[in-house]
Amino acid sequence: MNREPDIQEIRRTAERLRPHIHRTPVLTCSWLDGLCGAELHFKCENFQKAGAFKIRGALNAVLSLTDDEAARGVVTHSSGNFGAALALAARIRGIRATVVMPSNSTRIKVDAVTGYGAQVELCEPTLQAREAGAERVLVETGGTLLHPYDDYRIIAGQGTAALELCLDCPDLDIVIAPVGGGGLLGGTAIATRALLPAARVLAGEPAAADDAYRSLQAGELIPQTGTMTIADGLRTSLGARNFPIIHRLVDRIILMSESAIVEAMRLIWERMKIVVEPSAAVTLAAILTEPELFAGRRVGLIISGGNVDLAALPFTDRDEGRAR
Amino acid sequence: MNREPDIQEIRRTAERLRPHIHRTPVLTCSWLDGLCGAELHFKCENFQKAGAFKIRGALNAVLSLTDDEAARGVVTHSSGNFGAALALAARIRGIRATVVMPSNSTRIKVDAVTGYGAQVELCEPTLQAREAGAERVLVETGGTLLHPYDDYRIIAGQGTAALELCLDCPDLDIVIAPVGGGGLLGGTAIATRALLPAARVLAGEPAAADDAYRSLQAGELIPQTGTMTIADGLRTSLGARNFPIIHRLVDRIILMSESAIVEAMRLIWERMKIVVEPSAAVTLAAILTEPELFAGRRVGLIISGGNVDLAALPFTDRDEGRAR
Repeated sequence: MNREPDIQEIRRTAERLRPHIHRTPVLTCSWLDGLCGAELHFKCENFQKAGAFKIRGALNAVLSLTDDEAARGVVTHSSGNFGAALALAARIRGIRATVVMPSNSTRIKVDAVTGYGAQVELCEPTLQAREAGAERVLVETGGTLLHPYDDYRIIAGQGTAALELCLDCPDLDIVIAPVGGGGLLGGTAIATRALLPAARVLAGEPAAADDAYRSLQAGELIPQTGTMTIADGLRTSLGARNFPIIHRLVDRIILMSESAIVEAMRLIWERMKIVVEPSAAVTLAAILTEPELFAGRRVGLIISGGNVDLAALPFTDRDEGRAR
Repeated sequence: MNREPDIQEIRRTAERLRPHIHRTPVLTCSWLDGLCGAELHFKCENFQKAGAFKIRGALNAVLSLTDDEAARGVVTHSSGNFGAALALAARIRGIRATVVMPSNSTRIKVDAVTGYGAQVELCEPTLQAREAGAERVLVETGGTLLHPYDDYRIIAGQGTAALELCLDCPDLDIVIAPVGGGGLLGGTAIATRALLPAARVLAGEPAAADDAYRSLQAGELIPQTGTMTIADGLRTSLGARNFPIIHRLVDRIILMSESAIVEAMRLIWERMKIVVEPSAAVTLAAILTEPELFAGRRVGLIISGGNVDLAALPFTDRDEGRAR
């Protein structure tokens, strides 16, 4: 697919994915509604297969390959959720996948990829080594390289989450998603604009990794410089195919502090009893950071995933002492 | 109510509670099914109001008071979920509640009670001081003392969770619940035996607090001696009204180690992306400990609650090293 997906393409993609993925629930929490003075609808992609929305785009890309292409397998380099998602997508189609991962990847991330039956190739932890490793696999196998977000098939796939949300909650005033590479936000913006023309499309981005915010301000793509955010899924640079969509369709990107991300994540865990990753919590963090934008509104939040290392959580003791 | 509830009483209770509580979902997880070689159905009371099944019994007791009794308020002593549940139940009926809590209660637990509008009276952290504190409040207010589990109205209320589970999943071969004081297990056993006569009723109990197991073995009520379990909801002694029900209707109590509880809790968080407390995880821990009892069976697990201190989680780093 060599052009931006429109809503018809996202609808077709949803049909294609339907037999293979979960239609994730939309949850509400009256306590958080009270806190925010708004009506919040959480689209819970943390319950999606492989624990994140990423399977939507990965599977759409894999299903769109010709049989010849598919027979030679797929390749990506990834340190995060996309590697596991592509591994699962390849297993669903019954083809080979190779994921080039940096040698400092944690065992839990490597296990997630191999657990779905994909081949892992370890390389030095630099972008150059990752690209070289992927290139070597491509030469050996004749396979197809898939980019985690700078790809129209991926954008169409990720847009199916917002499609479901808009169908389930047709009265939303605002839809908000995290922005990292822009696959999820791009797809969300296309789907929401088409289905709910009166709704605003907003995004949350860590102030510590604010390339999308700065790109929108400048009107041109500005590479990521800071990656010191806890929201590890949002450290990437906005993609070249993603930027124009976001520039055209997203009303505003809201920045927030690292402590706001942790606080939002804690509130979701404590009050909703669901496990979400820091990148997913930037949506609620945006609302807590700029509450006046959301007051009295019906808001759909894309909760992007729930893959966290339980042995390295950011919660600290807020109990300043005993009761007396 | 001065006699054991039967299934008709549990059905009436469910009708009474219905406008005020959540009908919690029953979730499944194909990965955990694969691990256990069984078909698991998780009744998720961690999503219940106030974060645990306790509101069911507390509200049933509060709604069963006469207007005169209600006007004088309700009193309990609690360091855990029941205090918050009673506070919420009293708010729902619009009456006063006082919860006597040990002075070493964490702020988060005190806040949960006061957050629902109840009065907290702090006392020394001994059972004697708690009982004396409650007695003083009773003398002052003329209110009604409610016990967290040794009460037929409470047992009937807790049984409504299993009633919903059995109605949603009428093909279960086994229903398993945690056992602490026996309110939840007693109600679960009555409801399951009546609705699914062919199903076995099992319970999970920490080996470190095994009074229910020993009571069943001895055929008489044996007080709790060990309370060093991470499953803080299960440290109490089995109740006098609860024991005969459990003795008559529960097939078997399965003991497990502390590490099995933590491992089961970690699996539920990682794989299902839901927050459950250690006491809730003893159900899955029982299956992991004695898998042959469950192999090939359809199993309903009562997930009792999700109230945990996020700053004091038991998960340690299982990643023994980097990928190479």
